[in-house]
Amino acid sequence: MPTTFITGGTVVSSTGRTAADILVDGERIAALLAPGSTVLGTDLARTADTVIDATGKYVVPGGIDAHTHMSMPFGGTTASDDFETGTRAAAWGGTTTIIDFAVQKFGERLQDSLATWHEMAAGQCAIDYGFHQIVGDVNDASLQALRGLPDEGISSYKLFMAYPGVFYSDDAQILRAMQIGASTGLMTMMHAENGPAIDVLVGQLLAEGKTDPYYHGIARAWQLEEEATHRAIMLADVTGAPLYVVHVSAKQAVAQVASARDRGRNVFGETCPQYLYLSLEEQLGAPGFEGAKWVCSTPLRSRAERHQDHMWQALRTNDIQMVATDHCPFCMKGQKDMGIGDFSKIPNGIGSVEHRMDLMYQGVVEGRISLERWVEITSTTPARMFGLYGRKGVLAPGADADVVIYDPNGHTSIGLGKTHHMNMDHSAWEGFEIDGHVDTVLSRGKVVVDAGEYLGRKGDGRFVRRDPCQYLI
Amino acid sequence: MPTTFITGGTVVSSTGRTAADILVDGERIAALLAPGSTVLGTDLARTADTVIDATGKYVVPGGIDAHTHMSMPFGGTTASDDFETGTRAAAWGGTTTIIDFAVQKFGERLQDSLATWHEMAAGQCAIDYGFHQIVGDVNDASLQALRGLPDEGISSYKLFMAYPGVFYSDDAQILRAMQIGASTGLMTMMHAENGPAIDVLVGQLLAEGKTDPYYHGIARAWQLEEEATHRAIMLADVTGAPLYVVHVSAKQAVAQVASARDRGRNVFGETCPQYLYLSLEEQLGAPGFEGAKWVCSTPLRSRAERHQDHMWQALRTNDIQMVATDHCPFCMKGQKDMGIGDFSKIPNGIGSVEHRMDLMYQGVVEGRISLERWVEITSTTPARMFGLYGRKGVLAPGADADVVIYDPNGHTSIGLGKTHHMNMDHSAWEGFEIDGHVDTVLSRGKVVVDAGEYLGRKGDGRFVRRDPCQYLI
Amino acid sequence: MPTTFITGGTVVSSTGRTAADILVDGERIAALLAPGSTVLGTDLARTADTVIDATGKYVVPGGIDAHTHMSMPFGGTTASDDFETGTRAAAWGGTTTIIDFAVQKFGERLQDSLATWHEMAAGQCAIDYGFHQIVGDVNDASLQALRGLPDEGISSYKLFMAYPGVFYSDDAQILRAMQIGASTGLMTMMHAENGPAIDVLVGQLLAEGKTDPYYHGIARAWQLEEEATHRAIMLADVTGAPLYVVHVSAKQAVAQVASARDRGRNVFGETCPQYLYLSLEEQLGAPGFEGAKWVCSTPLRSRAERHQDHMWQALRTNDIQMVATDHCPFCMKGQKDMGIGDFSKIPNGIGSVEHRMDLMYQGVVEGRISLERWVEITSTTPARMFGLYGRKGVLAPGADADVVIYDPNGHTSIGLGKTHHMNMDHSAWEGFEIDGHVDTVLSRGKVVVDAGEYLGRKGDGRFVRRDPCQYLI
Amino acid sequence: MPTTFITGGTVVSSTGRTAADILVDGERIAALLAPGSTVLGTDLARTADTVIDATGKYVVPGGIDAHTHMSMPFGGTTASDDFETGTRAAAWGGTTTIIDFAVQKFGERLQDSLATWHEMAAGQCAIDYGFHQIVGDVNDASLQALRGLPDEGISSYKLFMAYPGVFYSDDAQILRAMQIGASTGLMTMMHAENGPAIDVLVGQLLAEGKTDPYYHGIARAWQLEEEATHRAIMLADVTGAPLYVVHVSAKQAVAQVASARDRGRNVFGETCPQYLYLSLEEQLGAPGFEGAKWVCSTPLRSRAERHQDHMWQALRTNDIQMVATDHCPFCMKGQKDMGIGDFSKIPNGIGSVEHRMDLMYQGVVEGRISLERWVEITSTTPARMFGLYGRKGVLAPGADADVVIYDPNGHTSIGLGKTHHMNMDHSAWEGFEIDGHVDTVLSRGKVVVDAGEYLGRKGDGRFVRRDPCQYLI
Repeated sequence: MPTTFITGGTVVSSTGRTAADILVDGERIAALLAPGSTVLGTDLARTADTVIDATGKYVVPGGIDAHTHMSMPFGGTTASDDFETGTRAAAWGGTTTIIDFAVQKFGERLQDSLATWHEMAAGQCAIDYGFHQIVGDVNDASLQALRGLPDEGISSYKLFMAYPGVFYSDDAQILRAMQIGASTGLMTMMHAENGPAIDVLVGQLLAEGKTDPYYHGIARAWQLEEEATHRAIMLADVTGAPLYVVHVSAKQAVAQVASARDRGRNVFGETCPQYLYLSLEEQLGAPGFEGAKWVCSTPLRSRAERHQDHMWQALRTNDIQMVATDHCPFCMKGQKDMGIGDFSKIPNGIGSVEHRMDLMYQGVVEGRISLERWVEITSTTPARMFGLYGRKGVLAPGADADVVIYDPNGHTSIGLGKTHHMNMDHSAWEGFEIDGHVDTVLSRGKVVVDAGEYLGRKGDGRFVRRDPCQYLI
Repeated sequence: MPTTFITGGTVVSSTGRTAADILVDGERIAALLAPGSTVLGTDLARTADTVIDATGKYVVPGGIDAHTHMSMPFGGTTASDDFETGTRAAAWGGTTTIIDFAVQKFGERLQDSLATWHEMAAGQCAIDYGFHQIVGDVNDASLQALRGLPDEGISSYKLFMAYPGVFYSDDAQILRAMQIGASTGLMTMMHAENGPAIDVLVGQLLAEGKTDPYYHGIARAWQLEEEATHRAIMLADVTGAPLYVVHVSAKQAVAQVASARDRGRNVFGETCPQYLYLSLEEQLGAPGFEGAKWVCSTPLRSRAERHQDHMWQALRTNDIQMVATDHCPFCMKGQKDMGIGDFSKIPNGIGSVEHRMDLMYQGVVEGRISLERWVEITSTTPARMFGLYGRKGVLAPGADADVVIYDPNGHTSIGLGKTHHMNMDHSAWEGFEIDGHVDTVLSRGKVVVDAGEYLGRKGDGRFVRRDPCQYLI
Repeated sequence: MPTTFITGGTVVSSTGRTAADILVDGERIAALLAPGSTVLGTDLARTADTVIDATGKYVVPGGIDAHTHMSMPFGGTTASDDFETGTRAAAWGGTTTIIDFAVQKFGERLQDSLATWHEMAAGQCAIDYGFHQIVGDVNDASLQALRGLPDEGISSYKLFMAYPGVFYSDDAQILRAMQIGASTGLMTMMHAENGPAIDVLVGQLLAEGKTDPYYHGIARAWQLEEEATHRAIMLADVTGAPLYVVHVSAKQAVAQVASARDRGRNVFGETCPQYLYLSLEEQLGAPGFEGAKWVCSTPLRSRAERHQDHMWQALRTNDIQMVATDHCPFCMKGQKDMGIGDFSKIPNGIGSVEHRMDLMYQGVVEGRISLERWVEITSTTPARMFGLYGRKGVLAPGADADVVIYDPNGHTSIGLGKTHHMNMDHSAWEGFEIDGHVDTVLSRGKVVVDAGEYLGRKGDGRFVRRDPCQYLI
Repeated sequence: MPTTFITGGTVVSSTGRTAADILVDGERIAALLAPGSTVLGTDLARTADTVIDATGKYVVPGGIDAHTHMSMPFGGTTASDDFETGTRAAAWGGTTTIIDFAVQKFGERLQDSLATWHEMAAGQCAIDYGFHQIVGDVNDASLQALRGLPDEGISSYKLFMAYPGVFYSDDAQILRAMQIGASTGLMTMMHAENGPAIDVLVGQLLAEGKTDPYYHGIARAWQLEEEATHRAIMLADVTGAPLYVVHVSAKQAVAQVASARDRGRNVFGETCPQYLYLSLEEQLGAPGFEGAKWVCSTPLRSRAERHQDHMWQALRTNDIQMVATDHCPFCMKGQKDMGIGDFSKIPNGIGSVEHRMDLMYQGVVEGRISLERWVEITSTTPARMFGLYGRKGVLAPGADADVVIYDPNGHTSIGLGKTHHMNMDHSAWEGFEIDGHVDTVLSRGKVVVDAGEYLGRKGDGRFVRRDPCQYLI
């Protein structure tokens, strides 16, 4: 098998950094070596098939985006990135694994939904991918099917406390599912917003003529995220199920997660770049219909209430454990614009899969988090959380050679016509400037991005079977 | 330089475990290799000078005990382990680095105290050692001297809120020292107990004829630990100094540390094995004078109030970050017995430096913490906390080859005449049984313990200069 | 109008006690007078129609039990006390006002339900009575009808988060009702237990053959009370509605109420004597079917977890504001015994309306609360909470002469054949001994109980119109 | 004895309001009567010696200011109000009782200090007065003397954690004093600021040339109030002593008091009008030396951090129990101006004794607190807290006829040359407008203020012996 030698760089892990070379043998890392060590009697810089000079750069494990929705059906349309375009954009941005969601609709067999999603993704992906299972219809059959997920290489499933009539599960359903989570070790992922209450408020706002995107954020008040977060935690407490709360955006919801963790519960929280950088006032409240670009749920929160600062702090203190994107892009034309005159018809979602590594690195530049924490929240923790560690999330012998060469002296300007490879007609991150650059990306040993060129191809990526969460004891 | 090849084991880090071989070249790790990889064209099992078969065993970074007191003067006597006996016992137990304390007494020049302790340790140690600086006399000169510590390879100093008239600093002194901590990055370590209040209670108990060791625990009420912990945190808050609270024992003090961390403060907490396993009622309250064995400060806490369970939980949730021993042994005969009839005259201290790795591993066996967390709290976090990471605390290319081969199928019976190598006439841990065993210990590449034999010698250990805490950003 | 002069006693209010005489003129208090004052030129002890010597006794405002369920339909049967028997028993125990519940069933017009309950009570009661309105079917019509309640003299309504299919409201319904609460000032009373989750657990326990009364308490886990309490608080927060949580039993639910209050929210908590004295292990877990006597919801809580001690403390610290009985008695024979072999068929309820004043007074004797706090939690706060203060809940000029003469040197043995006047075939309080005694009870100036005799008659009591809660500003 | 009949008003207590007349007989209240009641056969409006028409007005118990410092020696000068001028101003403002402080200086016998203060006050006061005892020198003799205070009619003493070298007590002294507090029931009042830490900061600020009044607030950081508050609470916890924290100003200190109360501790908090209305930025930071007017300790807090809003909320939620003034006036000329060029030399204190009732009433007007709460925090709670209830703090038969007729339709403009009767050359409250007015004030039955005239005289006021705190059980 072809070998690649990455030399001269600073290898950064979630705990520290060290000068080390990396030898890749085929798809995997064969060795980490002290620079200049001659004891092995081999001059790898000469014998390796490929040599990558990482001098002055960081060498980090490829990003793992544990929350994406390629081709997601929502509100009568479908997310604009499919597995091909979405994973390619991910690769551009230094993400080498995504975990997407198989979506069981109401009335559908769980197994069928998984088969459908396998079919959609197979042969399409630029990078490796796994699945969580959305359970949109909790009943005896789907609960029974849940038990079979570990054998399918799927160690997590997701419920919604929002979206009554679509994905919504009531508390009886949640309790029953969590009991299976507790007995099988499946992680319960929760969209924690009080959907029935939100829908009342939505209807009232619309009736009052408050139809702009901004009111999406008003209807989805922080109290209703905090409430649902707490409820999910207590239902998990009753059942003993581990719980992972997706896209936490309100500081009060963070406090609920933190409190549960302080009590020793297996409760975890994910946030997304949008909750760290963007706000209700600035983006969602942009003039006219512009705010539609940033309609997602949970919604952007108030800058005045300082949710963003609290979220950065929570990310630093480990009250929130990791960052995913909840990538679910929709174009303005033909998709988002369905909600002109009625914010509730705007498809919910933001596209960020390409920019997560950069946006989080900027947090390092700005002193929000350490370099090690960057690796931890973007790669190591996602791997441990969702049963990929060892293969992914770490640069270690035997691990998949998913490697990013990141240049702290490079620069990245985000925006259409600049670095944008997602299938969208706009960027939610237009104008963001990053003081760093993804130079080279290896996916299982293959260089897929280098020197501003995409070198991979459709189908490079394979389905990855996942083990249980590695934080549970 | 001689090479050593450790093969067949499971390398455990603070984030996960992987099958990997380790090549040691002289004092350092030259490479981590995927087992069976042939790409390097070298059969290391044949070419290495020494081969260690770690099949079926854990290969972990050597333990770092960041809180020991060899030859510590206290209460008119001196800790019974000196640097020779104490570090040798440490090596027996899989600890390859200690950080001891240079002790500035009242009236002494800080620099002189450091010189004294360098002299005491030089050429005596079995393993590497560093120093924290105790400041027993905060004044203009010693504050000025603090600024020079980083140049001496010392990145932390310690104050006492207990022991008025001995090591005690008042709040004005603490504030002034912390201001230097904030500006220099020196970590402030704090013995957090309200000494003036404790001394009143001690006097009253003795006056009432309550002279048994048990009353040592009554006088040092949890309220007075919690209070001082909170006070230290707020003084750190005013000054911006990072703070490390030593030997946290009360659950309420844990809550103070956790609360500060949730607010984003650079506050850290250390606990010790005795606060996880032993109690006020069982040990300190043992019949007659027996309890003297376990007189230490902070004291053992009540089992009925479940401080021990809370402490294990805090260790798991990272509300407490690491475990050191506060090793400060005194013999019963001639030392502890000075306090017969007056508990306040019992020298304070327990000897544990030899058993920390084992005692914490037993927490893994009992499901209290994960295997990875074991590595983290005993080695990786101490290294990061006190500026050793990269050299210590991790098995990575370029790191010192401080390695422990730990056998999960071995067994260790703790007690005099069994595994005890500390210079004590008793063991505080007599009768503890551990479901694991330290098989082999390498200190900077040299096998110092193997197959039940000590192979090192006095002077193997060197002083290690330390960088600032690696958790601050 | 006839006058009554109560002389020689110690008048106790919620803030203090004073030696004072009381002159009653007809139904109302005409004056409070300093003992022995001659300035009025009248010797009331001679001129009054009736003179009551209260020497050595406490003179307190008549008790107000703000939570009773006379003739309540539940689980296919009806509470065994009707308005006649229940209010007479109340009078025996020093309670001179009850606030019962008009019950709107699913499908019924709200106005009709109120009319029905007026009819049931009219002319039957021994003491004054008011109504809260249960809304068992939240819909456009009932929400509209809510707005009319203040005009009916009803300032509070109640929802249930428990009992799906019976009284249950979902979160959308709760939100809509609370919006009316916020705009009208109507107090929202909440039965806070997560009914859907409980029903799952009930079904599972029964399926496992766990059919004893004890499992009623297991199914209704504290987490599900805490959860619902928090949820109600957050929905109230979103809407701005004042909230009153009925029958709080879990210490964790208390903490939720306390936390909301510390944040300045208009959130109030009621507890009942059973949660202060009785427990899951002792009563609900009594051998055989005996535990059925104490099947009520929320359930009795664990003594081992010390909910009872926490509740007394919360009562003292005002984290819980008042004590009602949730009086809802069922006989063992023919009612409770419907649940032999299936705890879920046991009618929920305990009969306590007669004993509340005594049971709470015993808390004074035992040092749990002060004498003033006794008056506050049994009379003054209920009056202020539910818009009766001035007429009820205080001994002041112009107030209704609802007066209890309580003898701290008397004694009361509770139990069938002793002091029991409720229409039940057992007592939930059998064997309780009280170090005090209700000597004399005046209801609107009329002596209805005296010297162990009931002197009132059916129809003495009148419907009282209530103002809004007097704690809101 | 002469009688007074107050008729037509609304009598407001801490729990509610009622239309009632009051008959005063000599110094005491003889009766409260329902308006228009003829049952007594006496037309009091004709027979009383004096009739006061309170129609349209509130009739409330006279204010009790539990924290004043007449003639207080401080920083080389003496508070500008003596007992004559200060108590007269108090009367003008509707305060009919003050509790001042006897000041034991270092080296002085406690008993002597009390005698000195009795001498200073005797025959001087316009209204009744009591004493707390400041213990400025905690030693064996003064601790012994503390035990005698109850016999002197003094049920509280005060310690200082601030002002090292003046009134400061260290933790050992505090602990010893609190032990006596616990055994005698004496209330421990605490000035809770970390004096030693503050003095370091003061010195550093001055050395940096930061000498303006504003830096008084910077040196006395909220952390150092919060810290000391927590420390006092924990020392009280160890000893079992009840604790009253004076002049709480930081929201974080409020949280400490609230937390202790939630844990069931007998901990109480007082705030002052300045912490509700004034701020660090606006007043203390006024241009030039103007800020000196508002130099007091604890200092005014930041408006940006919203301490004032939090304090109003705490007052409403009873996390803070009452309002006193900490009246300690100094003139700008000759007193405050001692600190030009060195803020640490500005005498600490604000004069408010005259305006407390008005300033707090304005909180009612602005919807911050209820009318009842106004009575509670200004009169009823102070009376209960410091053992005066029954005689003071309530309008009830037998109570001292300390009565204020307050006109909600009146208006009061605060300021020099307007309503100012304190002995000061400025007003800390200049320009405050109050939507209400103190019309008439009775002190023990005597009208001392009426229709804008002062009708009392020096010596009207008597020393009042106090009972223990009435909140303890």
